[in-house]
Amino acid sequence: MKRLLITGAAGALGRAMRTRLASHADILRLSDISDLGEAQPNEELVRCDLGDAEAVHRLVEGCDGIVHLGGISVEDKFSKIMNANLLGLYNLYEAARAHGQPRIVFASSNHTVGFYRQDQHIDVTAPMRPDGLYGVSKCFGEALARLYFEKFGQETALVRIGSCMEKPTNHRMLSSWMSYRDFTQLIACVFRAPMLGCPVIWGISDNDSKWWDNSHAAYLGWKPQDNAEGFRAELDASLGRPDPKAALHVYQGGNFVNDPIFPES
Amino acid sequence: MKRLLITGAAGALGRAMRTRLASHADILRLSDISDLGEAQPNEELVRCDLGDAEAVHRLVEGCDGIVHLGGISVEDKFSKIMNANLLGLYNLYEAARAHGQPRIVFASSNHTVGFYRQDQHIDVTAPMRPDGLYGVSKCFGEALARLYFEKFGQETALVRIGSCMEKPTNHRMLSSWMSYRDFTQLIACVFRAPMLGCPVIWGISDNDSKWWDNSHAAYLGWKPQDNAEGFRAELDASLGRPDPKAALHVYQGGNFVNDPIFPES
Amino acid sequence: MKRLLITGAAGALGRAMRTRLASHADILRLSDISDLGEAQPNEELVRCDLGDAEAVHRLVEGCDGIVHLGGISVEDKFSKIMNANLLGLYNLYEAARAHGQPRIVFASSNHTVGFYRQDQHIDVTAPMRPDGLYGVSKCFGEALARLYFEKFGQETALVRIGSCMEKPTNHRMLSSWMSYRDFTQLIACVFRAPMLGCPVIWGISDNDSKWWDNSHAAYLGWKPQDNAEGFRAELDASLGRPDPKAALHVYQGGNFVNDPIFPES
Amino acid sequence: MKRLLITGAAGALGRAMRTRLASHADILRLSDISDLGEAQPNEELVRCDLGDAEAVHRLVEGCDGIVHLGGISVEDKFSKIMNANLLGLYNLYEAARAHGQPRIVFASSNHTVGFYRQDQHIDVTAPMRPDGLYGVSKCFGEALARLYFEKFGQETALVRIGSCMEKPTNHRMLSSWMSYRDFTQLIACVFRAPMLGCPVIWGISDNDSKWWDNSHAAYLGWKPQDNAEGFRAELDASLGRPDPKAALHVYQGGNFVNDPIFPES
Amino acid sequence: MKRLLITGAAGALGRAMRTRLASHADILRLSDISDLGEAQPNEELVRCDLGDAEAVHRLVEGCDGIVHLGGISVEDKFSKIMNANLLGLYNLYEAARAHGQPRIVFASSNHTVGFYRQDQHIDVTAPMRPDGLYGVSKCFGEALARLYFEKFGQETALVRIGSCMEKPTNHRMLSSWMSYRDFTQLIACVFRAPMLGCPVIWGISDNDSKWWDNSHAAYLGWKPQDNAEGFRAELDASLGRPDPKAALHVYQGGNFVNDPIFPES
Amino acid sequence: MKRLLITGAAGALGRAMRTRLASHADILRLSDISDLGEAQPNEELVRCDLGDAEAVHRLVEGCDGIVHLGGISVEDKFSKIMNANLLGLYNLYEAARAHGQPRIVFASSNHTVGFYRQDQHIDVTAPMRPDGLYGVSKCFGEALARLYFEKFGQETALVRIGSCMEKPTNHRMLSSWMSYRDFTQLIACVFRAPMLGCPVIWGISDNDSKWWDNSHAAYLGWKPQDNAEGFRAELDASLGRPDPKAALHVYQGGNFVNDPIFPES
Repeated sequence: MKRLLITGAAGALGRAMRTRLASHADILRLSDISDLGEAQPNEELVRCDLGDAEAVHRLVEGCDGIVHLGGISVEDKFSKIMNANLLGLYNLYEAARAHGQPRIVFASSNHTVGFYRQDQHIDVTAPMRPDGLYGVSKCFGEALARLYFEKFGQETALVRIGSCMEKPTNHRMLSSWMSYRDFTQLIACVFRAPMLGCPVIWGISDNDSKWWDNSHAAYLGWKPQDNAEGFRAELDASLGRPDPKAALHVYQGGNFVNDPIFPES
Repeated sequence: MKRLLITGAAGALGRAMRTRLASHADILRLSDISDLGEAQPNEELVRCDLGDAEAVHRLVEGCDGIVHLGGISVEDKFSKIMNANLLGLYNLYEAARAHGQPRIVFASSNHTVGFYRQDQHIDVTAPMRPDGLYGVSKCFGEALARLYFEKFGQETALVRIGSCMEKPTNHRMLSSWMSYRDFTQLIACVFRAPMLGCPVIWGISDNDSKWWDNSHAAYLGWKPQDNAEGFRAELDASLGRPDPKAALHVYQGGNFVNDPIFPES
Repeated sequence: MKRLLITGAAGALGRAMRTRLASHADILRLSDISDLGEAQPNEELVRCDLGDAEAVHRLVEGCDGIVHLGGISVEDKFSKIMNANLLGLYNLYEAARAHGQPRIVFASSNHTVGFYRQDQHIDVTAPMRPDGLYGVSKCFGEALARLYFEKFGQETALVRIGSCMEKPTNHRMLSSWMSYRDFTQLIACVFRAPMLGCPVIWGISDNDSKWWDNSHAAYLGWKPQDNAEGFRAELDASLGRPDPKAALHVYQGGNFVNDPIFPES
Repeated sequence: MKRLLITGAAGALGRAMRTRLASHADILRLSDISDLGEAQPNEELVRCDLGDAEAVHRLVEGCDGIVHLGGISVEDKFSKIMNANLLGLYNLYEAARAHGQPRIVFASSNHTVGFYRQDQHIDVTAPMRPDGLYGVSKCFGEALARLYFEKFGQETALVRIGSCMEKPTNHRMLSSWMSYRDFTQLIACVFRAPMLGCPVIWGISDNDSKWWDNSHAAYLGWKPQDNAEGFRAELDASLGRPDPKAALHVYQGGNFVNDPIFPES
Repeated sequence: MKRLLITGAAGALGRAMRTRLASHADILRLSDISDLGEAQPNEELVRCDLGDAEAVHRLVEGCDGIVHLGGISVEDKFSKIMNANLLGLYNLYEAARAHGQPRIVFASSNHTVGFYRQDQHIDVTAPMRPDGLYGVSKCFGEALARLYFEKFGQETALVRIGSCMEKPTNHRMLSSWMSYRDFTQLIACVFRAPMLGCPVIWGISDNDSKWWDNSHAAYLGWKPQDNAEGFRAELDASLGRPDPKAALHVYQGGNFVNDPIFPES
Repeated sequence: MKRLLITGAAGALGRAMRTRLASHADILRLSDISDLGEAQPNEELVRCDLGDAEAVHRLVEGCDGIVHLGGISVEDKFSKIMNANLLGLYNLYEAARAHGQPRIVFASSNHTVGFYRQDQHIDVTAPMRPDGLYGVSKCFGEALARLYFEKFGQETALVRIGSCMEKPTNHRMLSSWMSYRDFTQLIACVFRAPMLGCPVIWGISDNDSKWWDNSHAAYLGWKPQDNAEGFRAELDASLGRPDPKAALHVYQGGNFVNDPIFPES
């Protein structure tokens, strides 16, 4: 790839991908609404509000691929989510349509289905059960991506990320964790595939414990290598026995199901 | 019911429901962004932009039930859809949450699944395949309603209206038509049911030809009475043989699949 | 049929069938643990405890068909259910095996699945969710009948009766009601079919509102004629608006979900 | 339609359709390997062996629609089935491809699934279980039609005819019967539909008793009017009680499951 | 865990678990109707008939977890099965309800589905097809456990044990075998899980050959380590080629399908 | 096994199996319409046209097992396919029926489903979508094998071979490849199984990327060992980036979807 755009590159996940995807393209174009620090030799840094259509068009122009991590990534007030995750995503897809339809990895979320219980095993045909406005915005995002695929052939991987971080930090993540390495490898699979289509993919490592079935996406050849199970003893030691009544251990979306609607003011 | 709110009451469907639902509540509160004409004795008329949170709160207060037909109901530019169908719906659900959670009939649309072909038979578990930004906004609406159901117990009937009009005006509507009478009856079933939940319901009459399966919602006891088939001869006479290659006769969403993305300016 | 056995013939449902099935066989053999009154010309009356194996053998001998309504038919203490519904059923099937394997209509119950909500639509493959010890005994009965079918070819119709009575007496029965006429007709279909097998059949009339799908059993040609909907106005008038929070209107099993485990002493 | 071709027009079903479809096209072209009698004013009669490619090409040329009833329609030796139902069908589809791809109604058969038992309810996704070489030839035919649809857009209605005759003549046909009237109406629906695709359709009337589910094809708007049930009393009177062990009453394919492989010489 | 109860601890499987679970709790309370030998330092031995309600209450009191292996574990006469597996299980669940609802591992059985053929692949939604009265008692057990889960929140793992023994002793067990090690690990997973629910779990090792799908229970993180395949050569050598017509190699339940109903006297 | 017949033994796959299956039987009987070279000590070579019934009977007589690779294995004109794959297969099954019903491995093909896209994941219940006359002949073959199983108990493994060759030679084969080793092992599993039945099995190695689900056939204990992924780098180096619009990378059947119907002359 010549130029790969990573949005949301100043966030925790963005920073991890900035390092790990550096070798996957000649140039990384990195954007965020926050400061991105100093540019590495093969980097282009762009300060950009996703709600600004023109800025997003300039951002996308010239890119061969997009890893869209930008936008609000936790529960927040609707106005902020609307600007970044609804309008922002529309802007991104319009920009992609105008600039050659580069393939997109879209960071969707397990919070689209957060109200399923942890003793349920689901695949991507399970009806949406979002656990907050953030989750609703990801349902919107999946629908928008699908529209652009059906109507214009725009390909997107809709990755419902579980918990993508250095390592699991609570017992729920023994099921939901995806290592940086596995996510990086998934992104590589998405960009190398001759045909991508518009699949939903559960973003989890090869954990012993899991709630989600990725067999429909086996055509991508993604085989995650890591396993949250290796961290169980450490979690048991530091956190003690998990509370069986806590939302964190009852719902796939964990504590998000308890979030209130955030007031606008 | 004491007071039933109908939003979008100045539109074609709204006007039809205004008449037909008059006897279903002591008072009809009618709202629209457009002029609603003169109030009948049992009517309250409210000029209201759904994007205005405060106005929507005042609108909902005191109502026992809501038939939400308001918002943009055809393909349009994103900014308009965002204001009326995304922000507007959020405002409506927040208002309902603040004011006793009256049951809601939400006018969703077949355009959430418009890219299915007309030789496909689907039920409500079929993945979304929206045919435009309007359809995407209805996917958002269904997800938002689901959130409020899961989190707060707010009940909504998500009616994916086919073609609700006086009578079918093209051959596609032999499958997608819902008579005003049948929609009225559906609304009555929704409000009388002890338990509603948050079902998706295909809004069609008892047409000989159909694409959609409503058996999952049989608990509501809705039995549509009308049948588009009675209009076939008339349509054949006036329109001639339908073009088998036209989107109107290939896709469930009909001509919407050919709509462009409307430019903002 | 020469001789048709009806067990539980002194109960409400048994009495109704006693009259209605009189013309379906040369002789009706009627049994119950309670008094059966005076015999009609074509009747044989047998006082019988189903827990008494020998008595049950004598009861079954010489019969061409069995309508098994006997046993405990509401929630009760386990010892009583065990004697009548577990041991009693075993006795009945052993007797049938010894005496020519007459076809059996077994009164199973909706209480095998009573914990499904009333907004759920299920078919006979839905996992069991019994709502009491009575319901558990019917799960046992279905399993026992299945065993005798698999191992010995004994045919049984497992009729999960909803509410079989003169007419619906609450709003739940608008969905669960089966008229005496329709049950009689179902029994006739079961006995006339060349091949019965061992199907589960939902015992409901052709109600507008329903939770259960009988399409798998269409080979029997049973077409119920009655519809609980005709009693809605009457119920509304006498009972008022149903309480949406009451178990009666939330669960398919209605109030049974609230029954305690009955203490033995 | 200008010219409708009916193959196999000298057979029992062909003769029935010859009369009933006369008004559905300006000209009926009728073909058979047997004598077709005298031509009516709007008829063209063609003596034709389906195994003769050139003859079939001439037969198809100029036709707007084809009702393909020709070929062997019962169990027979393989060489005859190969010539008429395998080679013959290939010839027909090649001819259709060469001559404008007129829509085809293909007389497939319930003998593609004849080994299902009569207490099983299946839809068109049920795996093939043919009950003879004849049934296998129909599996071939459905696959061939599908190929021409996928590769060339040739539309075919694959009608798995149950028992299409004047009236049911045994108890099996209470489930499998299709009246001439209903088949005629189905053919009309197939030719009038803007989009046909390549559906499998179970060819049965609106019988009370049925094994097959046509809901996937509801888009055609076919509503059969007749019901074999009306003949039950007559069959009971003339045939007595059906033997529950006979293949005729155990398998959907009836006696065909007992047919031997016919020796070639 | 402080105190873990193992019922049926004198049986073959019970003895194996007695050893292997010793380190999983401070105290093992062991019960059986047969002699349990001498107590180890951390053991409490209780002679107990499961049919004795009071004895079972005392048995359960003070336990944090229960591994219920007790009861009849092969085909037997109904009276014995009724006492131990029906009444006995009821007693156990009542005792658990009275004493803090300790989590239960219930030894259900593959004989609940023994009539499936060995070329069928099933998951836990497959309808019950018990192969004997023993299998029927396990269907009852699963239904009873489900009732206590739905009504009281009692959690149980319903483990449909295949063949849990030292090693496979016939070719059927190449598919049905579960090693002691894997069962021990499963029990550990069940007790450590924050949320258990009431899942059915197929009790088999990671055999190359298998009939049963456990993916729905992946949330428990159980990864069996052993594989019956390692014993194939040994079985081939000692037993020769398996008879393809023998029930042992045709049905999932093996020889149980041939068991008669055991006479009471 | 005493004598194993391999048909089509002169083809590429046949030659590979000739070597690898040598040790699986005392005698290999090898047949082809082409020259088979010189016989090895344990080989019997037979020149045979599958269309010649008598020759095929002689060929099959005395064999304990058959690996049927013979017939046309690419797209060709219908007359050739009819002789070798339709008539030839009929001859083979008749011969097997006459000679003790030796178990058969039938080389079916992925071209029975070639029109599925490469982003679709299917199992053996997916409806046929053949991509040419060759594919249609394999649909016929599967139906014929099924008939002989249902009617006569003839067991066959219907192996839908992906791409069985030395190594993958294009990017499509990263998903469709089956190594010779894995196919050999599959054949061994088929012949050793006590019960085979008549399963469809996808013939692929344990590739990281795959489209097909074999879990229904896990009872055979086949665990492929090879993985096409190891050849990706080599393919990337020699072929460059695959064209995403090429049929080879869009359809499961690859270039076959583009094959014309081959003219007869």
